[in-house]
Amino acid sequence: MDDIDSPVAPAFPTNPLDPEEFRRQGHMVIDFLADYYKTIERHPVRSQVEPGYLKKLLPDSAPLNPEPIETILRDVETSIIPGLTHWSSPNYFAYFPSSNSTAGFLGEMLSTGFNVVGFNWMSSPAATELESIVMDWMAKLLKLPKAFHFSGGGGGVLQGTTCEAILCTLAAARDRKLKDIGKSGIGRLVVYGSDQTHCAMQKAAQIAGISQFRAVPTTRADNFALSPAALREAMEADVAAGLVPLFLCATVGTTSSTAVDPVGPLCEVAAEYGVWVHVDAAYAGSACICPEMRHNIDGVEGAMSFSLNAHKWFFTTLDCCCLWVKDPSLLVKSLSTSPEYLRNNATESGKVVDYKDWQIALSRRFRAMKLWMVLRSHGVTNLRNYLRTHVKLAKRFESMVAADGRFEVVVPRTFAMVCFRLKVVGGGVKKIKGSEEWTNEINRRLLEGINSTGRIYMTHAVVGGVYLIRFAVGATLTEERHVDAAWDVIKEHADVICRGGLY
Amino acid sequence: MDDIDSPVAPAFPTNPLDPEEFRRQGHMVIDFLADYYKTIERHPVRSQVEPGYLKKLLPDSAPLNPEPIETILRDVETSIIPGLTHWSSPNYFAYFPSSNSTAGFLGEMLSTGFNVVGFNWMSSPAATELESIVMDWMAKLLKLPKAFHFSGGGGGVLQGTTCEAILCTLAAARDRKLKDIGKSGIGRLVVYGSDQTHCAMQKAAQIAGISQFRAVPTTRADNFALSPAALREAMEADVAAGLVPLFLCATVGTTSSTAVDPVGPLCEVAAEYGVWVHVDAAYAGSACICPEMRHNIDGVEGAMSFSLNAHKWFFTTLDCCCLWVKDPSLLVKSLSTSPEYLRNNATESGKVVDYKDWQIALSRRFRAMKLWMVLRSHGVTNLRNYLRTHVKLAKRFESMVAADGRFEVVVPRTFAMVCFRLKVVGGGVKKIKGSEEWTNEINRRLLEGINSTGRIYMTHAVVGGVYLIRFAVGATLTEERHVDAAWDVIKEHADVICRGGLY
Repeated sequence: MDDIDSPVAPAFPTNPLDPEEFRRQGHMVIDFLADYYKTIERHPVRSQVEPGYLKKLLPDSAPLNPEPIETILRDVETSIIPGLTHWSSPNYFAYFPSSNSTAGFLGEMLSTGFNVVGFNWMSSPAATELESIVMDWMAKLLKLPKAFHFSGGGGGVLQGTTCEAILCTLAAARDRKLKDIGKSGIGRLVVYGSDQTHCAMQKAAQIAGISQFRAVPTTRADNFALSPAALREAMEADVAAGLVPLFLCATVGTTSSTAVDPVGPLCEVAAEYGVWVHVDAAYAGSACICPEMRHNIDGVEGAMSFSLNAHKWFFTTLDCCCLWVKDPSLLVKSLSTSPEYLRNNATESGKVVDYKDWQIALSRRFRAMKLWMVLRSHGVTNLRNYLRTHVKLAKRFESMVAADGRFEVVVPRTFAMVCFRLKVVGGGVKKIKGSEEWTNEINRRLLEGINSTGRIYMTHAVVGGVYLIRFAVGATLTEERHVDAAWDVIKEHADVICRGGLY
Repeated sequence: MDDIDSPVAPAFPTNPLDPEEFRRQGHMVIDFLADYYKTIERHPVRSQVEPGYLKKLLPDSAPLNPEPIETILRDVETSIIPGLTHWSSPNYFAYFPSSNSTAGFLGEMLSTGFNVVGFNWMSSPAATELESIVMDWMAKLLKLPKAFHFSGGGGGVLQGTTCEAILCTLAAARDRKLKDIGKSGIGRLVVYGSDQTHCAMQKAAQIAGISQFRAVPTTRADNFALSPAALREAMEADVAAGLVPLFLCATVGTTSSTAVDPVGPLCEVAAEYGVWVHVDAAYAGSACICPEMRHNIDGVEGAMSFSLNAHKWFFTTLDCCCLWVKDPSLLVKSLSTSPEYLRNNATESGKVVDYKDWQIALSRRFRAMKLWMVLRSHGVTNLRNYLRTHVKLAKRFESMVAADGRFEVVVPRTFAMVCFRLKVVGGGVKKIKGSEEWTNEINRRLLEGINSTGRIYMTHAVVGGVYLIRFAVGATLTEERHVDAAWDVIKEHADVICRGGLY
């Protein structure tokens, strides 16, 4: 790149935010994306590129001169799209899907278009107020106890991800405890979860300077839910060893197998030890707006905080984590800063929420806009129906698996994910090697064989030593025919493995 | 809200991501936003609403039934826009502007539209690879030493905000030091900055469990830059007291007055004490792509990490913080987690970057897309020219202030922000009360008077006991005529104050 620095500026193009140019190019990108969704099944779901592919296609330096949008979009088509894993594809069943929707997209557009930086109320009152209102709407939908609503002294805030939500609540819990036991006690604090708890918990503990994380073992007999008795045992042992139980992350819908920790009984144990309970319902929380699934968070009244990711299964696009706390003042104590340059009358009146003190960062996007648009564009009735449809599709898949003697459903399905595998002993196999390791290896090969075709994409987990394949329904475009076709793909690959005598 | 739960679902509307409905509604929102930019000067820049205004306009619960996009956009117009502070207005001169652009917006649209969750390479190779490439492009533009480029063993990552960037580097620095001095040493660690350092530093220290933050005092004689001698003194005293210097945040372009800490000499002092230096160039870093402003980060080769906010002054829309580190393995050591469900061949090959281990959260948006689009749509030459235009406009404002005997420029202007105030002693005043407090009070009234008209929006700071008004040029739509008109508004209000004998 040439670092010419002519003091005489060349003629400028139009202002970078010229409204008519914005309109022209904006329409082009809308059409580009609409066409992308329309033809998304053309692309292999999991990208087929090799590490380093893009370096070969792009120049070494930023261009000195402007390039037209047409050229850039052509490059998106030829260079970027082949390197994407298509999370919006109806044939995407991996990880937990990140549910997309027109309403969520439009909300993000408006938020990006206004581009307000809503660190405090003053900097854009609507951003703060809409967030508080929508979080109360969601709290009602979930039938969260009053203590989590603003009107009950609690309140909700939109974070980016669960990792951030856990880190913020953990810092609040830590500082409350250190006030009692003294700052030097930080080395004695212990955080609890199960061996199924999301890695966000461990990461948050690391960042917060807490080195002791107990991953209490779960068992297949308990469907990999955290046992209150085992938790009590762990806490007792820690107390006996002079340590200080601090924080428990209970999970409703674990990543590996959507296990549901028994929130109520766990809160009772935690209460005995003065432990802050956070309920991480990142994936399954959304489903709890359906009355028939609400029981999964029964007992949440005993928790101090609760979170779910609206970007996972509530149609809002990444990122949008809803966090509720019973005592916002504890968050504020740990996370607030009040520099002079942000002082303002509204804050000093005490009548407003300044969300910068409820999160890690100072700057924050206007995320409430997308949640509001999703709720209004669809209405609660339809949102419930969409969620139920996903559950129904997963049930359909589960029965197909169960009806094929070569397969087994590894843990009972609770939401819209099915954990299954090829069994070692079953019909149509030539050679039985028998060991768990061999079964795991066979399933690993089956999954990799399927994913490498690009026709569908699933991922795996290992629970209790069992390698299982996760079939997670939730991509917005998925319909019954996609689930049926996915099952056909899986069967085809199983046929090859069985015929080939690989197992 | 009625919790009806009819097991028979009513007829569904179209799929929430139906491509043709996406196209229709997407075009509507593009037109909505284009019209918003076109008529943005109609709106008071600082919102005029009172706390609680929105609760009066919106229902108490989410709607049960869907509402058409036309209704929702009408509500955005009537309920949301009056509650916005218009950061995109050409008459916005508050805080640091968050620069918007068509290219940045389109990049965000594509990123939201693809909605990939790029936690690791595997989950969407293009998201990771484009980020690494674009961060190397930016490193070149800034003439960062080779050690910060991927090819030099370092590398760049896109975070949301500076707060996150500082927290991540601080955690890495902390864990490196605790490896030497033992975990129990956490209580002895000390973090340094000046009394002008952004509150993000203090907040990051709080979250990371480090309770000692030294805000070394600055003086007007040094233009509020951190003095290396004063830093050495603070570190010496701490070491003598048995404490352990850990981390220094040096700022290039402070929030209050765009002061520039002398990076090179500060790094030399820090090196003597084995301290990690982070250079926070959140605001002014972007300007350093212009060769004539690059000297502001001279000495950065002595730092361990460097960050700037592309959403502040690089046209990418919120949020987009560029962070470079010399030793990514230190970030990874503190921030990595490797759960089984994310295991994949690419990671195990060691050939790829998994950015989840470079940041707080696991999930991450495809932010590189917008930075890439900004660089390509404008080209480096124009981007430099846009930045220079903002500096030129600030210079113009500065000369107008300097030519009016009633005002003074409080600290010399370095970038595109002017710090000024009404002087106590000057022409045209009836009553001289003389004290600094009175001068501060007069300027507070002047600023509030101006902002409450909604015609322009500026904010304040207090440095060295002086209340100053900050005139920050940087909103993308601002042209010379807006700066001139802003100066007229300021003069009008000063006239009233002077005539009224208020000072």
